[in-house]
Amino acid sequence: MKRRAVLAGLAALPAAAAPSFSAPAPAPGPATGPAITKGIRELKMVTPWPKGSPGLDSSARRLARLITEASDGHLRVTVFGDGEFVDAFEIFDAVAAGIADMYHSPDYYWQAKVPAFSFFPAVPFGLTAIEVAAWVHRGGGQALWDELSGQFNIKPLLALNTGVQMGGWFAHELTSVADWNGLRCRIPGIGGEVIKHLGAIVVNLPGGEIVPSMRSGAIDAAEWVCPWLDLAYGLHEAAKFYYYPGFHEPGAAVTLGINRKLWDSFTPSERRLIEVAAAAEYGLSLTDFTYENGIALRTLVDEHGVQVRKFSDPILKELGRISEQVLADLGNNDPLTRRVYDSFVANRRRLMDWGEISSRAFYNARSLALG
Amino acid sequence: MKRRAVLAGLAALPAAAAPSFSAPAPAPGPATGPAITKGIRELKMVTPWPKGSPGLDSSARRLARLITEASDGHLRVTVFGDGEFVDAFEIFDAVAAGIADMYHSPDYYWQAKVPAFSFFPAVPFGLTAIEVAAWVHRGGGQALWDELSGQFNIKPLLALNTGVQMGGWFAHELTSVADWNGLRCRIPGIGGEVIKHLGAIVVNLPGGEIVPSMRSGAIDAAEWVCPWLDLAYGLHEAAKFYYYPGFHEPGAAVTLGINRKLWDSFTPSERRLIEVAAAAEYGLSLTDFTYENGIALRTLVDEHGVQVRKFSDPILKELGRISEQVLADLGNNDPLTRRVYDSFVANRRRLMDWGEISSRAFYNARSLALG
Repeated sequence: MKRRAVLAGLAALPAAAAPSFSAPAPAPGPATGPAITKGIRELKMVTPWPKGSPGLDSSARRLARLITEASDGHLRVTVFGDGEFVDAFEIFDAVAAGIADMYHSPDYYWQAKVPAFSFFPAVPFGLTAIEVAAWVHRGGGQALWDELSGQFNIKPLLALNTGVQMGGWFAHELTSVADWNGLRCRIPGIGGEVIKHLGAIVVNLPGGEIVPSMRSGAIDAAEWVCPWLDLAYGLHEAAKFYYYPGFHEPGAAVTLGINRKLWDSFTPSERRLIEVAAAAEYGLSLTDFTYENGIALRTLVDEHGVQVRKFSDPILKELGRISEQVLADLGNNDPLTRRVYDSFVANRRRLMDWGEISSRAFYNARSLALG
Repeated sequence: MKRRAVLAGLAALPAAAAPSFSAPAPAPGPATGPAITKGIRELKMVTPWPKGSPGLDSSARRLARLITEASDGHLRVTVFGDGEFVDAFEIFDAVAAGIADMYHSPDYYWQAKVPAFSFFPAVPFGLTAIEVAAWVHRGGGQALWDELSGQFNIKPLLALNTGVQMGGWFAHELTSVADWNGLRCRIPGIGGEVIKHLGAIVVNLPGGEIVPSMRSGAIDAAEWVCPWLDLAYGLHEAAKFYYYPGFHEPGAAVTLGINRKLWDSFTPSERRLIEVAAAAEYGLSLTDFTYENGIALRTLVDEHGVQVRKFSDPILKELGRISEQVLADLGNNDPLTRRVYDSFVANRRRLMDWGEISSRAFYNARSLALG
């Protein structure tokens, strides 16, 4: 998942860029903390999602509703999409400063601050959705994440997962590793770093420019999210070949990042309710993606003639080899990123060993038996 | 998952067996509904789990705690394990009658009432944990389940999932489909029905008798749950070969079944809080199983010399072929079970198509790339 329409230039932003603010006018109450009226806490959630975007904006709004309804209106959360309260790339700093109360976004957008932020949302050949939760909730990930985000006055919680994404749309079939050489691809993040090593030219493009850029031949390939969202954005109108699996984003997680001082001011019951709602929405969002992708995949294939292709084994092997190098290099950046890397790798090894004989073996057995 | 120590004889119980009650004494308040004191609703959750059993009892107790804490003590849920308030096989009828407020149990224990109950917790070659949620929350499953359980004055919610289980413990290796012939196996439920078709002799045994029965040679194989629970129960002390995948329970779901009149008496906010807590615990329990199985698998292999084996492809194909027959036969039992079967099969087909190119393809790619 990439909200690149507005976030394409994020990495170039100075970490301490002062947030600017846009319409609508702030809700009543002190600008540096949540409004409290008659025992009601008014909370502002800022997101990078365009209003009405399926999967992402809809999940943020449901999370806000779950918190509001389960607290009987005591915690009243209002969602502000891209530009509605602050611009998309300013949401982290706005929450850190207490100008907004919480953000809803994948944390790889903050990797320019500390590379460790890249490990929680999505790593090539990394963890699937429930494995991410296992690392965070049980394998020491939450403590490291608290330490990382705590440096910026943020309390992070897992709040959404897309599940396994797709590998992207390609104008031509890929027959060998050599085909990546010179390919002009719109694949940001660590995945983009990986294919650069294969000679690909990585292009940053806002989401709205993907379809025209592919049609004009300016780019040869583009990764977006998954059938549900790709269909909504019309990616199938620009390229015929739809590759899988999304090796670079096997379980893309979105964070609910809460102003830390605000978090500490909540009662234990309020904190519990927000934790429970975020954990519920993590599973419900994953459920929605799983369900909607099944429907959208049929539409893409049956109604739009999309050709679904698997990355070949030699390509996947080479992508895996390079991904491990890129990840290890990232881990050498600073001491905290190193500790996050070490924890991630140790957990992945153990989770993979179990995944081999449980999920992987079952999916293969079901495929074999039922076709 | 099978709480067979107490439930082995469940199928033989008449559906309308009058519940009997055991210690401890009921909490204060009317016997036919929740106690309400000073705005606090005292709620009794009854389960078939032995107190302190990992994964199952612990998840029920956390769910109770989440509801209690997130409601700031307004909804105060107390958990009663096997025999603490009613016996394990009486929990459904106790909740239906309003003597207890909610149960926590897989619904296949009620398949003698209506076979449709078998489709929600676990089906051979059926749905994985998130696919179960996709069917229930999005694919029409909840409405059918409400109709089914509603006949018994129960409102069902998904509350736990074990993830993919193991295939069981075997005294000898299985080299061909013919090896099942005459094999004395403790594998209950639909899985047991399936292997009967291969000539296996299915034996019902309480959990505590598995280890001695395997050691004495009275049985040749036994299925329990997964590394985490099997290690705790000492199954590795009775047999050397540990087979995967658990074709018969790819995503075993546990129900929070709430007295329907009580459910209808809750405020919208109370209902929302319970729904949110159950959805959160569904993911958190799956997360725990995923994490703990990784640790337990290492212990079993490294410290106890367990030999992990995969069911061969010809065996899996044959198990799949028979499972589909057994399932279709079950679907012919009554009109409601037929509708549940049709809904299940249609959802599975679509979810499988997406699972093929997402989860299955990613697990295989990661295995190929990282080994």
